[in-house]
Amino acid sequence: MGNIAIAIHGGAGTLMSGTIPAEIEKAYHDALSESLLSGYHVLSHGGTAIDAVETAVRLMEDCPLFNAGKGSVFNSDGINEMDAAIMNGMNLKAGAVAEVHIIRNPISAAKAVMNNSPHILLASAGAEKFAGEQGLDIVDTSYFYDEQRHKQWLLTKDKDSSWAGDEIALPSDIKGKKFGTVGAVALDSAGNLAAATSTGGINNKKFGRIGDSPIIGAGTYANNKTCAVSCTGEGEYFIRNVSAYDVSALIEYKGYSLVQATTEVIKKVAQLGGEGGLIAVDNHGTIVTPFNTSSMFRGWMDATGQKHIAIFR
Amino acid sequence: MGNIAIAIHGGAGTLMSGTIPAEIEKAYHDALSESLLSGYHVLSHGGTAIDAVETAVRLMEDCPLFNAGKGSVFNSDGINEMDAAIMNGMNLKAGAVAEVHIIRNPISAAKAVMNNSPHILLASAGAEKFAGEQGLDIVDTSYFYDEQRHKQWLLTKDKDSSWAGDEIALPSDIKGKKFGTVGAVALDSAGNLAAATSTGGINNKKFGRIGDSPIIGAGTYANNKTCAVSCTGEGEYFIRNVSAYDVSALIEYKGYSLVQATTEVIKKVAQLGGEGGLIAVDNHGTIVTPFNTSSMFRGWMDATGQKHIAIFR
Repeated sequence: MGNIAIAIHGGAGTLMSGTIPAEIEKAYHDALSESLLSGYHVLSHGGTAIDAVETAVRLMEDCPLFNAGKGSVFNSDGINEMDAAIMNGMNLKAGAVAEVHIIRNPISAAKAVMNNSPHILLASAGAEKFAGEQGLDIVDTSYFYDEQRHKQWLLTKDKDSSWAGDEIALPSDIKGKKFGTVGAVALDSAGNLAAATSTGGINNKKFGRIGDSPIIGAGTYANNKTCAVSCTGEGEYFIRNVSAYDVSALIEYKGYSLVQATTEVIKKVAQLGGEGGLIAVDNHGTIVTPFNTSSMFRGWMDATGQKHIAIFR
Repeated sequence: MGNIAIAIHGGAGTLMSGTIPAEIEKAYHDALSESLLSGYHVLSHGGTAIDAVETAVRLMEDCPLFNAGKGSVFNSDGINEMDAAIMNGMNLKAGAVAEVHIIRNPISAAKAVMNNSPHILLASAGAEKFAGEQGLDIVDTSYFYDEQRHKQWLLTKDKDSSWAGDEIALPSDIKGKKFGTVGAVALDSAGNLAAATSTGGINNKKFGRIGDSPIIGAGTYANNKTCAVSCTGEGEYFIRNVSAYDVSALIEYKGYSLVQATTEVIKKVAQLGGEGGLIAVDNHGTIVTPFNTSSMFRGWMDATGQKHIAIFR
């Protein structure tokens, strides 16, 4: 079956262990588990890394617990505005969409851009038109409505909060913040790597802000020579550091291990004052999930078939 | 006066020497010269690299000869749609705008995003709203109209040409193609590096395509540790290779010289099948302008004060 491996994340944050009601923690645990197993199923049946990361991310997009697809936060206009990217380490092909509002699964639109256009990044109405022509699932904006997220937006919409923080909706009795974004990285039995990231961005975000998720090299990167990476956190710091590609460059150019490279990259984010984490898998099947926050929703499985789900350190 | 240096480009292409009417070649030569001297003037009077690259790029944005600002090509809806980015190597701060239609100088909007928002990339109407609130020059879309560009668009709009090539408007008696994009890189007397890139994208482009110009790490990057880079050409290849940051990574992690690093990065673009070039300056004031096309409109000056303008190899 080869050295298959997959890791997923459902966002980093500053949640503290013991502060989340058990039933909510269980709901997240179950959703991460379902996403992880679905991606692993693709790999263990000889599927490609690209299909595995798309499958895993789609399930998280469809789950309102995560800030991506259904369950995305609201922007300052009260609209759900989503970004996603996917990259194939086999040929360095990539696709991404930004500022889309009516595509049910932005990650599948990103994949269609990669496979069926000569472009990499399509934005807003143009990206939606392309997705429609590709036969992807187009939905009414109301599909993305989630009561909890909307309630949070109503509380923040008159504040300048997109400048202040990147919190997403959590039940009001939970302390701490949680960044958006879901992602997956995988190594398939043919030795190919892939990475995928999808996000609803920042609650109450203004001015058409695009974060690191749809930016190849910043939030998403894959290269069979080295590794596949998907980031989560304060996206601007990952853009300034070109973080996802930097992991690859440290491995390729400095001979760092995946652990060394990702530790260095998270340190650089922290040095600029940023918070977040990433998941990565290298071409040997090594999996790492470093973060400098107190929590990162994550899961991983390798060829042993043992399932790992974790939220806190 | 320190080791100041500046380089600019007005786009790479496949023009052949001797095929351009002398008066058109002279017009480009004069426009490049004016931009270069304006940026150099900032540096030689103790100004910052950031101000120098902004100044140089603004002049090319205002000149209808270049595919950026006034003179931008038309997208498939018959609209001029522009992207720009700027990065400060001193602190890795960056700003960018994408898909903007009414901002006279997109590079100045990118600078405002960098200086006056916590974000890096703002897109479409949101970016325009931000630029307006920042007091930047907002113009009617008709400001960007250029008869020559519009004529070319009319000739191509019913073809699927944005898929096929990236040609921009040239008088019909000129053979070859010319990619869009203008850019500047500079080292100031305080030892700070900066890079700026601005573009009208691809003639007849569809689906909200965003290229490498506004993507930090792909088309634009600056870091005082290493170098400042601005790219031009088939943007998708520069995104897939994370080309601008890759130059920096090869210098920092492999100890490459600027010549070695940029040669390698242009080779990687060619290996994927891409065409284009870049300008770069390192923190010693070394300037390079490599490209794998037959032409790249460019100019450079270092502390000696000698002005260089070139179009062909």
